[in-house]
Amino acid sequence: MTDSQDIPAVGMVGGGQLARMTQQAAIALGVPLRVLSDSTHASAARVIADVRVGDHRSLDDLRTFAKDSDVVTFDHEHVPGEHIRALEDAGVACRPGSAALLHAQDKRVMRERLSAHGVPVPRFAPVATLADVEAFGAWPVVLKAARGGYDGKGVWVCESPAEARGVVERAVAEGVGLLAEEHVPFRRELAALVARSPYGQGAAYPIVETVQRDGICHEVIAPAPGLDDELAEHAQRLALGIADALGVTGLLAVELFETGDGVLVNELAMRPHNSGHWTIEGARTSQFEQHLRAVLDLPLGDTTPTAPYVVMANVLGGDDPAVYRRYIHVMAHDPAVKVHFYGKEVRPGRKIGHVTALGDDLEDARERARHAAGYLGGGSA
Amino acid sequence: MTDSQDIPAVGMVGGGQLARMTQQAAIALGVPLRVLSDSTHASAARVIADVRVGDHRSLDDLRTFAKDSDVVTFDHEHVPGEHIRALEDAGVACRPGSAALLHAQDKRVMRERLSAHGVPVPRFAPVATLADVEAFGAWPVVLKAARGGYDGKGVWVCESPAEARGVVERAVAEGVGLLAEEHVPFRRELAALVARSPYGQGAAYPIVETVQRDGICHEVIAPAPGLDDELAEHAQRLALGIADALGVTGLLAVELFETGDGVLVNELAMRPHNSGHWTIEGARTSQFEQHLRAVLDLPLGDTTPTAPYVVMANVLGGDDPAVYRRYIHVMAHDPAVKVHFYGKEVRPGRKIGHVTALGDDLEDARERARHAAGYLGGGSA
Repeated sequence: MTDSQDIPAVGMVGGGQLARMTQQAAIALGVPLRVLSDSTHASAARVIADVRVGDHRSLDDLRTFAKDSDVVTFDHEHVPGEHIRALEDAGVACRPGSAALLHAQDKRVMRERLSAHGVPVPRFAPVATLADVEAFGAWPVVLKAARGGYDGKGVWVCESPAEARGVVERAVAEGVGLLAEEHVPFRRELAALVARSPYGQGAAYPIVETVQRDGICHEVIAPAPGLDDELAEHAQRLALGIADALGVTGLLAVELFETGDGVLVNELAMRPHNSGHWTIEGARTSQFEQHLRAVLDLPLGDTTPTAPYVVMANVLGGDDPAVYRRYIHVMAHDPAVKVHFYGKEVRPGRKIGHVTALGDDLEDARERARHAAGYLGGGSA
Repeated sequence: MTDSQDIPAVGMVGGGQLARMTQQAAIALGVPLRVLSDSTHASAARVIADVRVGDHRSLDDLRTFAKDSDVVTFDHEHVPGEHIRALEDAGVACRPGSAALLHAQDKRVMRERLSAHGVPVPRFAPVATLADVEAFGAWPVVLKAARGGYDGKGVWVCESPAEARGVVERAVAEGVGLLAEEHVPFRRELAALVARSPYGQGAAYPIVETVQRDGICHEVIAPAPGLDDELAEHAQRLALGIADALGVTGLLAVELFETGDGVLVNELAMRPHNSGHWTIEGARTSQFEQHLRAVLDLPLGDTTPTAPYVVMANVLGGDDPAVYRRYIHVMAHDPAVKVHFYGKEVRPGRKIGHVTALGDDLEDARERARHAAGYLGGGSA
């Protein structure tokens, strides 16, 4: 089962940038990493020796892939839960397991489970008709597809019944389950990133602020500036508690709303997360190494930051696909900014990379990260 | 010529751990990295998607390899200079070029060239017979193979003519050119690591101390403890000056002896170097990223250290090839130590990985690095 010596092989389903960056950590640890990717040209497939081309929705492909891996993990939430259960029934170590991952796949299940555990979440209700939405009785209302949404997709903020009608009709037509949620008047968005191993060890990164525009994360600031110490510790404990309650193995990212009363849980992800890219240079253990350590049931790594402030900014594609010639300007302007490019085709608005700036001064680090990301993206940011 | 967008492809000749770790940096920069390796099981070949199997001593293999690369570079010094010249004549961008690399391939040429530039080196003389060695007239004398030696191989410290006789006779029989050098009574060994781009930009890392045993590097301490500031700056300038004088493109590692009078140049390497592994976590730009930036003629990265002290210790193989089960102890004992394993077969005394410890306290960081490296190696260290 192993490429070399006695080191177990990790199979990651998905060939995106999360698998790509996991490879950097796998190289250091000597862990053979293979991916199940729909193409040899996917972001991760370009940088990993052992790429299996297949469909993550095919149980046959998953079974074949799992055969050569000691542990199976995921770079996205789109593998059908019944397939993961089938692998588990066949004795495959899936981390996270299907029972945990369900809460990152189905927002209704997640909301209900967290509520039952006393975790603060926005007021919500499953809705099937416009009458249900009107009965929910909060305007503006946030309508969400229970499954399949991410990066602002599958989320609609409706000001009136007239706006909600179109969303409900389309959801019914497409067989998509809907959730209504109160529109939380949050101060800002935060994220908690923790890891949990099968052995039960937990580790938490500092709470970060995420700056979103149009539902897409543009910037992550670690640690969240001016966050009350007690609230930060509360948010870390909350995330560790959720990981424990749900039996998560691997990383758990908890997207939070900060309100006047504390924090509410918005979304969960059980994998390396955009809000944790800053850890590559900004923490003693990157989230990618931490995920590998957790799914392999190794002791978790130190999460201490490497600088007072770390700012990550996403690079969004612009109209000009020629990114490389922009490297010269960005690197000459700021020799310390770290450039990450995912090897994806450039399309306007697509996340094609990120940059990280570290420093003692928050505003300086933000300005450096924004400048580099904006310039690399070619002006769309 | 490129895998994605407009990013040039780098071809690295050699499939060892230096190419392997270069892949971590190439992933971040989105640079397609391919290697020419003698086996698909080599350290780098295990972690790179585009592996070309071939012989670095075959001009045909090199020509074929170079065809798909925008820039060719090297993870070792063993490519024949005439082959690199043939590639250059055919228009291939080789970085470093053959004229520079010769000084890392032939110690006699290096000594003569550096002497001519006024760079302090140990007293030396080419020797062909025992009479030449006796005429050199310094005992103990260091005899060195002019070409092909590394990690203590090809270096013999002889106390007497009787000892030297055997070395000379074997060298003559094998057609190996010999150099006699004075045995420098150095205080300690240092290393300077710099980068130089084709554009002519230079960048220097802090001077480090390297701790050798039996000619093999065991430990690297950054920065070299207690080193006089003026001498440190002098050593950096010396290395930058050598890079400039020799027209190096890429990294240049300069191994130094610190004596009562200053520093003497021992060896040169024009590639990522064991004395720079600490930069992966210990500097804002790793030596591997810096090498890629230099050979691609991109602006060089910030070399600022990320901690007051960074200690790297090599993991040498022991009798027990089962390394992975040792991870648990090492990671549980010290969640902050960084483990690097090269995916090589474990053989007693072979460099199979390294560990890095960062900290405010030198002795603490040394103790942590030594403990982790010793334990991972299984007791041979």
